Amino acid sequence: MGSVDEKKLRRAKFEEAYHVVKKDLVDHVASLGMPEDVQAWYSKSLDYNLPGGKLNRGLSVVDTVEILKGQILSEDEYLRAAILGWCVELFQAFFLVHDDQMDGSVTRRGQPCWYHVAGNVAINDGTILESAMFYLIKKYFRRDPHYVEIVELVRETVYRTEMGQLIDTITSCPRDSPRFDLSKFNLNKYKLIVLYKTAYYSFYMPVALAMLMCGIPPSQETIWGFNSGTTSSTHLPPPTDAYSIALRILLPMGEYFQVQDDFLDAFGTPEQIGKVGTDIVDGKCSWVVCAALERCDAEQRKVLDEHYGVHAPEGYKAAHLGDLGPSEKRVKGLYVELGLGEVYARYEEESYGRVTGMIEWVDEEGTGLRKEVFVSFLEKIYKRTK
Amino acid sequence: MGSVDEKKLRRAKFEEAYHVVKKDLVDHVASLGMPEDVQAWYSKSLDYNLPGGKLNRGLSVVDTVEILKGQILSEDEYLRAAILGWCVELFQAFFLVHDDQMDGSVTRRGQPCWYHVAGNVAINDGTILESAMFYLIKKYFRRDPHYVEIVELVRETVYRTEMGQLIDTITSCPRDSPRFDLSKFNLNKYKLIVLYKTAYYSFYMPVALAMLMCGIPPSQETIWGFNSGTTSSTHLPPPTDAYSIALRILLPMGEYFQVQDDFLDAFGTPEQIGKVGTDIVDGKCSWVVCAALERCDAEQRKVLDEHYGVHAPEGYKAAHLGDLGPSEKRVKGLYVELGLGEVYARYEEESYGRVTGMIEWVDEEGTGLRKEVFVSFLEKIYKRTK
Repeated sequence: MGSVDEKKLRRAKFEEAYHVVKKDLVDHVASLGMPEDVQAWYSKSLDYNLPGGKLNRGLSVVDTVEILKGQILSEDEYLRAAILGWCVELFQAFFLVHDDQMDGSVTRRGQPCWYHVAGNVAINDGTILESAMFYLIKKYFRRDPHYVEIVELVRETVYRTEMGQLIDTITSCPRDSPRFDLSKFNLNKYKLIVLYKTAYYSFYMPVALAMLMCGIPPSQETIWGFNSGTTSSTHLPPPTDAYSIALRILLPMGEYFQVQDDFLDAFGTPEQIGKVGTDIVDGKCSWVVCAALERCDAEQRKVLDEHYGVHAPEGYKAAHLGDLGPSEKRVKGLYVELGLGEVYARYEEESYGRVTGMIEWVDEEGTGLRKEVFVSFLEKIYKRTK
Repeated sequence: MGSVDEKKLRRAKFEEAYHVVKKDLVDHVASLGMPEDVQAWYSKSLDYNLPGGKLNRGLSVVDTVEILKGQILSEDEYLRAAILGWCVELFQAFFLVHDDQMDGSVTRRGQPCWYHVAGNVAINDGTILESAMFYLIKKYFRRDPHYVEIVELVRETVYRTEMGQLIDTITSCPRDSPRFDLSKFNLNKYKLIVLYKTAYYSFYMPVALAMLMCGIPPSQETIWGFNSGTTSSTHLPPPTDAYSIALRILLPMGEYFQVQDDFLDAFGTPEQIGKVGTDIVDGKCSWVVCAALERCDAEQRKVLDEHYGVHAPEGYKAAHLGDLGPSEKRVKGLYVELGLGEVYARYEEESYGRVTGMIEWVDEEGTGLRKEVFVSFLEKIYKRTK
């Protein structure tokens, strides 16, 4: 996808469409007779929660539309693609606002989480971001032949993502909760959480939205493809319709993306990942601890039971500048002992190979898909550590 | 709508459909591969939040379908009407779960609020209730000629209700908040809040859903009728299409319903209303205080500024068994002094007369509507104090 400058330009163009989005949304509530303080609040919530991220998900809609159309987009086509892109960003903002409040998080994207600024009305602000997506979709796609499918795709992805949040919450509890129990963690559960909480909305939805906008015909039976509840069903027959193909390729990519994130949280240096990993001390259901649980003997399991999810004692960090807390150190030592770096490398190779293989077999003629859609994702995702 | 026994039977029949709703929803998430603890959590959230209310809103969909069809419903028709009725109840449950958490409420329907039971994941449980509506609508109405309009009606009512929550939150702040300020309250703002927070979803949506199910043709321009942001625009020309007529009659009814609720909170005895009113001590933007603000002189305004939204001192209630706190007593005295009982009685008569007049003019032949739809609402609503 071109040079660094080209990337910056693409991003800047996409960001311009944000002003259209914001104006559409605020003008609409003004037309409903909302007083000025309400309009101002809505503006502020949009500015705070929407444009500050990496915008990869939103941009991937525009990228995919461009690849599928195979030509420079007209101004109107670009705007419509960008609107769908911003819907994906609204989707993400809706979930992050709620997720931060549910987790009691402190900061997001380098600023205090919205609920710390807004108070409890952040709950309502979150669902307003969700409603805003459907307002935009109606405004720009009401006459589109696939309007209904676009609405249903977003609606059902919301539902699935909520299911992901729910499994995640029920599975991962903070250490001080009486429900904290490592035996709830396993790789199958982990994959289910990632599939529902991340892969559908971050990988499948942006591409499927672009496909719908480009008129690739959906068939009601297959827009969600198989429902096996895992991304690694190798026993299924190869799909022939465009949406099932996209699902089968993009969901494993989504899984890999999250596994990589989890791996770097434990194994990456702060310089590499731009933050200090906290999954171990927070007791998260991470790929790394699930992989460890699968491999540890009784002795090693005791180390995990005792030290996973345990923060360093108050004041420890200050006294041992830059050092890990004793529990975190024990867990990380165990990870190395179990050779999880190797396990990860093998997982990465296998996942990359499998996805590459599937992409090779995509029938471009028969489906209207383009291999480049998936290759461009592959390059962005798998390159992160390479 | 018949005798007390008949009412009980109607309610019991509607409650039976809840088991279908619950089974549909839980079976669906099971089919997605959700583990049993997730299914159990979802079941529990549905049972806790959905069937325990008065069910008036849900029943009004079934009632309206029966009136519009003019005959006993077939089993299939009844189920489809009841599904829409339960969607209205899901809508309400979604908002109540979030509302209680935002307000920090303690109990709802005689049991602890859901977020006290579930913790912060109640935020996600709330939005799951919203998603559940759209799942049911798709399952039962995907082939209906008005499927798109049903989805849009519910979606846009959600958005409007969220706007109502937002104005309400920005306008009413707890006394201990630096933003508490009576000059933000006025009758226009009050009416706007009621329109958006209550009237659309409780009065218009159930009837409009029934109309869509009965095949009364919607026209895109008029499904939301006028957007003047108030329920008392007497300057508009009389509408001729069915949905605008329903809006014009039902929104003032919704307004009256809320005014009555607010009036009884201040003037009703606990025996009458089944609870102790708390709007005064909680500093709510109630119709009564807005009416008082419109009528008070400078001296009386000082009483409101000083005493509205002030709880009795700790321990006061125990020492003065059954007595009002000193601030509450001052405010209630002022309400009587200002003759608000009379003001309310006049408002009620005028509202009743106006709605009755509009109903008389409904063109049944030309629109497919039946006056009885509105009369049955009128009797239920305006009879509460008569």
